[in-house]
Amino acid sequence: MLVENSRPIILTGDRTTGSLHLGHYAGSLKNRVALQHTHRQFVLLADAQALTDNIADPEKVRRNVLEVALDYLAVGIDPDETTICVQSALPALAELTQLYLNFVSVSRLERNPTIKDEIQLRGFGRDIPAGFLCYPVAQAADITAFKATVVPVGQDQAPMIEQTNEIVRRINRQIGRALLPEATALIPATGRLPGVDGKAKMSKSQGNALPLSAAPDEIRAFVNRMYTDPNHLRASDPGTVEGNVVFTYLDAFDPDRAAVDELKERYRRGGLGDMTVKRRLDDLLQELLRPIRERRAAFADDPGYVLGVLRSGTAKARAKTQSTFDELRDGLGLFSFDKIA
Amino acid sequence: MLVENSRPIILTGDRTTGSLHLGHYAGSLKNRVALQHTHRQFVLLADAQALTDNIADPEKVRRNVLEVALDYLAVGIDPDETTICVQSALPALAELTQLYLNFVSVSRLERNPTIKDEIQLRGFGRDIPAGFLCYPVAQAADITAFKATVVPVGQDQAPMIEQTNEIVRRINRQIGRALLPEATALIPATGRLPGVDGKAKMSKSQGNALPLSAAPDEIRAFVNRMYTDPNHLRASDPGTVEGNVVFTYLDAFDPDRAAVDELKERYRRGGLGDMTVKRRLDDLLQELLRPIRERRAAFADDPGYVLGVLRSGTAKARAKTQSTFDELRDGLGLFSFDKIA
Repeated sequence: MLVENSRPIILTGDRTTGSLHLGHYAGSLKNRVALQHTHRQFVLLADAQALTDNIADPEKVRRNVLEVALDYLAVGIDPDETTICVQSALPALAELTQLYLNFVSVSRLERNPTIKDEIQLRGFGRDIPAGFLCYPVAQAADITAFKATVVPVGQDQAPMIEQTNEIVRRINRQIGRALLPEATALIPATGRLPGVDGKAKMSKSQGNALPLSAAPDEIRAFVNRMYTDPNHLRASDPGTVEGNVVFTYLDAFDPDRAAVDELKERYRRGGLGDMTVKRRLDDLLQELLRPIRERRAAFADDPGYVLGVLRSGTAKARAKTQSTFDELRDGLGLFSFDKIA
Repeated sequence: MLVENSRPIILTGDRTTGSLHLGHYAGSLKNRVALQHTHRQFVLLADAQALTDNIADPEKVRRNVLEVALDYLAVGIDPDETTICVQSALPALAELTQLYLNFVSVSRLERNPTIKDEIQLRGFGRDIPAGFLCYPVAQAADITAFKATVVPVGQDQAPMIEQTNEIVRRINRQIGRALLPEATALIPATGRLPGVDGKAKMSKSQGNALPLSAAPDEIRAFVNRMYTDPNHLRASDPGTVEGNVVFTYLDAFDPDRAAVDELKERYRRGGLGDMTVKRRLDDLLQELLRPIRERRAAFADDPGYVLGVLRSGTAKARAKTQSTFDELRDGLGLFSFDKIA
């Protein structure tokens, strides 16, 4: 039996549908690098969940398991501090999902606001794959299998935690004790980083995202393409800072708050050109991304090491998730050869 | 690698919600005893499926795993010829279910006629457990995991096979070869045995069923309670054979067809009392059930043997189902540590 440490357990992860970009870095990866020192952190390469709306292209989902793992290692997620594991290689998650599906009604799933929004976003209409409708239950399986009490999610994903806790309460009530812990959503203080075009969401498929592996000239081109104030034609014109992507990024990445405030004031007043601000941001991003890019390339040259990390993380996660499933099976009084033997 | 024999693979089983009765014997168990010599037969103790509408009483489902196994052994299902296995102890089935849910739309599940009927029967209304809506997909996982080509089902369950084959065709099309075989429904020649009260379905919960473990006086009482012709008051009255439960049972169990035809004629004409016909049926059922009851009691006295049978059957089934899942994962190009190593 492993001695479990007393840090709170955190579960996070990414659907493996593409390599990660600067938006992921600002919104979650950076936090994970910090949280791994204060929490017992599990990071899930969510390939099974990715299949719920990518079943026609499983090759993409498979390939990106390693790409996302490279991103994790590149940004400084440390396999000695964080357990990185592959979702589809944890059968207890599928078994828990199947069990939990009995505790949730179809109408409850259809009322889930996140599911409603995403059905619309993906244009599924009446042809939602059943796996997609059920994925909040699969997420409940993920969260509870690790006994996570802290789950970092975007504001729009908060209903997922509510669904999880409903299942947790229903099961604990039936068992008569708090076998599963409830989870708390950890919603990041900084909002979502906009795309280069100013659109609310940075996403690879919309071509407005900067990959973490971007080369120096890609970074420069990305910054140059940034949406600023369309009425700020000459440097001497007064300009608007709100909704100006360059300033939003400076807010997110520039450690010198006072300098940024001063730049904003000059920009508003007139007398500060877009190019000057963009150059500052470019310098910052070049400095941020160079070590990430270099580490990513080094790890990419050593796939044996990366696979070893995933293998040992997945083995650890398998033990953890299987043990939760066994406890639950025991608590609910389900059949088990072990209990009879 | 096991050498697989060339007999067609048949998958059958029972939800473990109660011990089996005479209706199960006539409708399926008797056939299984015969089919095990011509087919490679897997019989599933479907405890996971039983939970889809019994999640509030998992103890009932657990307990009946052993009860149903005793029924199997008692009627002559031979563990050397038939693989008897426990559904919930086969994680590949849950993993396949999760995968298949991505290939089926919610609206397709809602259109399934069996599901529609059963939702009504169970009074679920809008509160159908998601697991119940999804159980045709879980059945598709069961059938394909064993690569069964023959599936004995009641007429009302035929849509389940159709659903399975839809998934099979969709997956084979995506993979580009017939990795999974389509299945054929084997619908028993003899219809369903009515309950003692003449109701269409014999069922423990309706109190109109005769358990396979029934004692001699229980059998006698069951036959005596049988619904006959309510207008056949005196032996000399002409009587009706159609819908007369005693004659339906004689048709099902009496090997002497000529004698039964003669009795029917005498009954129709008048001059044959209910008691005479019932006595004949009682003799037949006593003779049929005595050895079953005795074998059942003997197996019940040796739970170690029964568990051993389930353990070794489940181990065999685990190898078979895991191998199908591995093939499918490979065929679809899903992530697998084995393929990279």
